[in-house]
Parts: sequence; C-alpha cells; structure tokens
Amino acid sequence: MTELALIERITARNPVRPGTLLGIGDDAAVLDVGGRAVVTHDMLVEGVHFRRDTAPLASIGRKALATALSDLAAMGAAPGEAYVQLGVPDDLDEAGCAELAGGLAAVAAEHSVAVLGGDVTRAPSLTLAITVVGHAASPEELVPRSGAHPGDVLAVTGELGGAAAGLLLLQRPELGDGLDAGVAERLRARQLEPEPRLEAGRALASCGATAMIDVSDGLGGDARHLADASGVEIAVELERVPLQQGVAAVAEAAGVDPHELAVGRGEDYELLVTLPQERVDGALHAVRATGCGLTRIGAAREGTDVLLMEPDGSRRKPSGFDQLRG
Amino acid sequence: MTELALIERITARNPVRPGTLLGIGDDAAVLDVGGRAVVTHDMLVEGVHFRRDTAPLASIGRKALATALSDLAAMGAAPGEAYVQLGVPDDLDEAGCAELAGGLAAVAAEHSVAVLGGDVTRAPSLTLAITVVGHAASPEELVPRSGAHPGDVLAVTGELGGAAAGLLLLQRPELGDGLDAGVAERLRARQLEPEPRLEAGRALASCGATAMIDVSDGLGGDARHLADASGVEIAVELERVPLQQGVAAVAEAAGVDPHELAVGRGEDYELLVTLPQERVDGALHAVRATGCGLTRIGAAREGTDVLLMEPDGSRRKPSGFDQLRG
Repeated sequence: MTELALIERITARNPVRPGTLLGIGDDAAVLDVGGRAVVTHDMLVEGVHFRRDTAPLASIGRKALATALSDLAAMGAAPGEAYVQLGVPDDLDEAGCAELAGGLAAVAAEHSVAVLGGDVTRAPSLTLAITVVGHAASPEELVPRSGAHPGDVLAVTGELGGAAAGLLLLQRPELGDGLDAGVAERLRARQLEPEPRLEAGRALASCGATAMIDVSDGLGGDARHLADASGVEIAVELERVPLQQGVAAVAEAAGVDPHELAVGRGEDYELLVTLPQERVDGALHAVRATGCGLTRIGAAREGTDVLLMEPDGSRRKPSGFDQLRG
Repeated sequence: MTELALIERITARNPVRPGTLLGIGDDAAVLDVGGRAVVTHDMLVEGVHFRRDTAPLASIGRKALATALSDLAAMGAAPGEAYVQLGVPDDLDEAGCAELAGGLAAVAAEHSVAVLGGDVTRAPSLTLAITVVGHAASPEELVPRSGAHPGDVLAVTGELGGAAAGLLLLQRPELGDGLDAGVAERLRARQLEPEPRLEAGRALASCGATAMIDVSDGLGGDARHLADASGVEIAVELERVPLQQGVAAVAEAAGVDPHELAVGRGEDYELLVTLPQERVDGALHAVRATGCGLTRIGAAREGTDVLLMEPDGSRRKPSGFDQLRG
C-alpha cells in the first residue's frame, strides 16, 4: 500500500471541522484556532506495548488513538484534531495496513476527530506515534494534575483491573476456564480496545474537579503522579476500588491479589479525580449521565505520600511503572 | 536514564514563550493560541533514516528536529513549540541518551523553539517522532504547495546535492580521497546536520511566493509534489541547478551523474519555490539578506508534467522516493 492510500484509509471518515484551512497533503496542516489548544502524545511500539499475535491490527489502531484521546479526557478537553505517525514493518501487507488504518479511522469517527496529517515510513517494528489536539470550550475548566487540596474527595470513573485481567487472558487463555464467555470477552476488550472517557472528563471538569489524571500506569502509579504534582498525600481505601466483573476470578486463577491487577498494573484508562466535598454529589450525577459510574475511593490529605489502605487498617506499597525501565 | 531525566535534558534550554499555560508534566500541554497554528511531523527510524555507526547521536537529534522545522520553513511560518516522542532501544546507555537529547535541545535553542511535551518509551530501534507547531505572524502569508501559476519563476535556496554526496562519503570514505578536507566536512555536515531554512522561508512568504516545498525527497520528487498540488507543469533547467562544492567530485569518484545527487536524491532541505516574475528581484534580495542564496532554475507552465531539461534540450525522467516503498 502506498503512503497516500494508507493516509486515505485513515482519513476517509474525517468530519468537516471549521477552522481547518489546510489539511492533509501540504508541508503542514494550518488551523484557525481561537482560545486554548491542548496537545498530547502517545507512542506505541510493537513488542513493548502490544504484540501482533495477541492483538488484532484493528484493535492496535483503535487503542493507539484511544489512549492519546484519554489524555484529553483527563484534562477535560474536547477532542479536535489528530496526527498519525506510522512506522510500518516490511511484513505488514496491504490488508494489514488497511485493518490498522480502519481501527484508527473508526475511533476518530466515533469522537468526531479529524486526522489532519502525520507521516508514514518503514520501520523494523510496527510503531504508532499519535498526536492529539483538543480544545477547551470553557478555558477555565481545564483540569491539571496539580490542583488537589487536602480535604478533597478522591474518586475514579468506571471499574479497574479489567485491562490487566484481559491481558492475562490473552497471554494464558486457560485462566478463563469456567469464566462466563461474555465476561471474559469484556475483559479482553478492555485490554485491546479501551474507551477514552471524554464525556466523563468534560463532566468532571464542569463539576469543579480540582485534579485529574487517566489511569494508564496503574492506580498506584497515577495516584503518585497526582500526589507529587499537587503536593498532597493521596489515601486510597482498597476495598472501595471498583473491580470489573471477572477480575477477581482471573486473579484467583493466576494466583495474584485482585487489587494488584487494579492498582499495580495499568491501562484501564479510567479517570482518577479529586473533587471538593461539596461538589461530589453533582459530579456523581453528571458522570452517570455520560454512561459510566463514579466511585469515591479515598481522599487527598496533608502530606506527600500515597497510601493504599487495607480494610484492616494496614498499608500496602504502591507499585508504579516507568515506561523506560518497565 | 529515567524518562524524567531525559526530558529535562531536552527541555533544559526551553525559551519562555508567552501563551504557554501548562508545559511538560501534565496529561497535555495547554497553549493560549491566537491566529493560525501550523502543525507538522517527522518520524525518523534507525536503519531506515539513519545508522548509529555513521551518524553521531547528537547529529541524529539535531536532524530529527531540523527536518520537522524545515516543513515550517516551507510554509513560511515562524517556529513555536515542539513535541518529541522517543523510542529508546535497550543498548542506548545514559550517555547516549544525553547526547541525543543535547542535539535536540541545541536545535530547539537555536530557533527559540520550546519543547513542551512528548513521550518516551522502549523500542527495538531508536525512533524519533517529532511534532512541530508554528505560527503565522501574518496569516495571509503562509505558502501552500498549491499556488503556483503558469508563468511563475521556479527558484531554489542554497545549493543541492550536498546531502547525497555527504551520505556517499559517510558510507564510502575513500570517495573523498583528494577532496579538500573542509569541503568534505561540509558535505558530511549537510547530510548529518541539515539546517532548516526558516528565515529564508519567511522572507519568501513575505515576497509573494505562490508555492513552496522543502527539498526532502529530491528536487525531482518534490517538484512533482508541487506540480501535482498546483496543477501546473514544472520545467527545471538542470544546468542552472546550484551544486554544493565537492558534489561533482564525489559524483565522479562514485561514477554517477552529479545531477543525480541533486535531483534524484533528497535531504538537502533547501526550499523550492515559485514566484511571480515581478517579485523575483525582491525575493533574491530578501533571501540573500538571510545568509543563503536564491537561484532561478526554471518555470511553472501550463500542463501537468515535471520536465528536467539538459542543456542540449533533451529531457530526463525525474526520479522520486516514496518513503514506504523506498
């Protein structure tokens, strides 16, 4: 497949966006931008972030764009444009390129994102470097990681642990013996095709969220980022952490603590958020209206640590994940 | 080297840019943008675009950012922010990462570019995916590829062929036997550390350039892009194409036509531009004031073809380079 044909596959369903003065095909895209632009990136590399023997190419394309959009969700921004840089190995044929491009194009269409440019080159391993630009409808509503205050409530959208359990099922299918087929499928889907919580992110931003981050490194690691940026202690009550259905069963089959899947490993792409006490009820209502749950799991306090607290009052060490060392 | 330490190396010399509301360290960068944003990308992959045994790591970093900035030059835009996505192989040690980061940081500092974000991950081969955002001081002055009219003069900045000759010298040092050491060094530097023609690009934009593209694929291939986008025929008089000093000698030693190095191969990162006849004198003067030359090498005419004309009136086929197939 030529570079042009591949780009056309990705951009086939581009929405018409006002302010796009020059799209694909020139040296650069040109946008007429008013207000604030939110810019974020994600790079996925075969053998590091995914394997083609366990992940279908369409899912790889979907996940690459979805995880980049998840960073916009964590700012409370509305998605705008995307730019896709692809490194294509020699053994990826035309049908494979089309499948990958189809996954990217589908997520773009679902979230009204226009793919306005990028680059395609040969590479020894399949590589996707995605840039996403979002826009703030109401600029003062963008939510950084750094705004949590002692006394704020800590909450998380949706359910955790599913991506890690799904990965275990992909690597060791026998762990799913006895698991309901639909439950197992939803765990695998959470790993392969995570959903960016864009609507929930905007709802939380407009409900007064003080700090927000998406759970990509694991609840422990991402709570650490939030605590460090805000200069607070984050205390998580482990028994309150909502686990996706089937996580406990897979954890038991694998011989690990189910909270290890939710806290120590990442990729659920839910939103971890702090809110002033008096804004929590409104946020619960607003997030549920977007079709996902919001659960109180702890609090921000004076201090600098991250505490993972067991029901008996004992504490556990949070584990994180540094992409370079991991 | 941790991800954070590597990012700090790259951003150490960031200029202070007004409008940057949130830089490195959150889910996304947030910019207060007025007017038009110009967004462009370049992805460089080890084994495809460079080899670590012939290119020093600092040069690899320099070239990655310089080639992305070259696309801004070709729009006539002023450089603004950069985002760096790095895939780091296991065999690149801390000193190597620092050298690479130093090359990126040096080019950013030279052009007052702020590195505001990116991503770092492990990868089987060193991979650099760069996003650069430029700004148009005067929006109507941005120059697309598509504005050439029949009757326009075709011109090119600087000199061509040096990058291809430099690559030959890096691969086969014996081709430089008998060549002046300084001349050979400048050929290698053209390959390893090309300079984006940012000032020349802005000068050409303000002098009424109708179409512009940077010479990254070779004069033949890039003239084809310009002809296709503008719907014109581009005629190049080969004898007028300015060759960098030493190109003819290296070509002779390698047994190839010197114009093959200038026309059939790329990476000189000069600007190929069309101008109305009456704006040429002003453009020559304005580009020279930026420290590089501008040479008339042909014309845009009615038609759709690219013609490379020998002094005797015969024509040569242009050769291009599709990144995916090449």
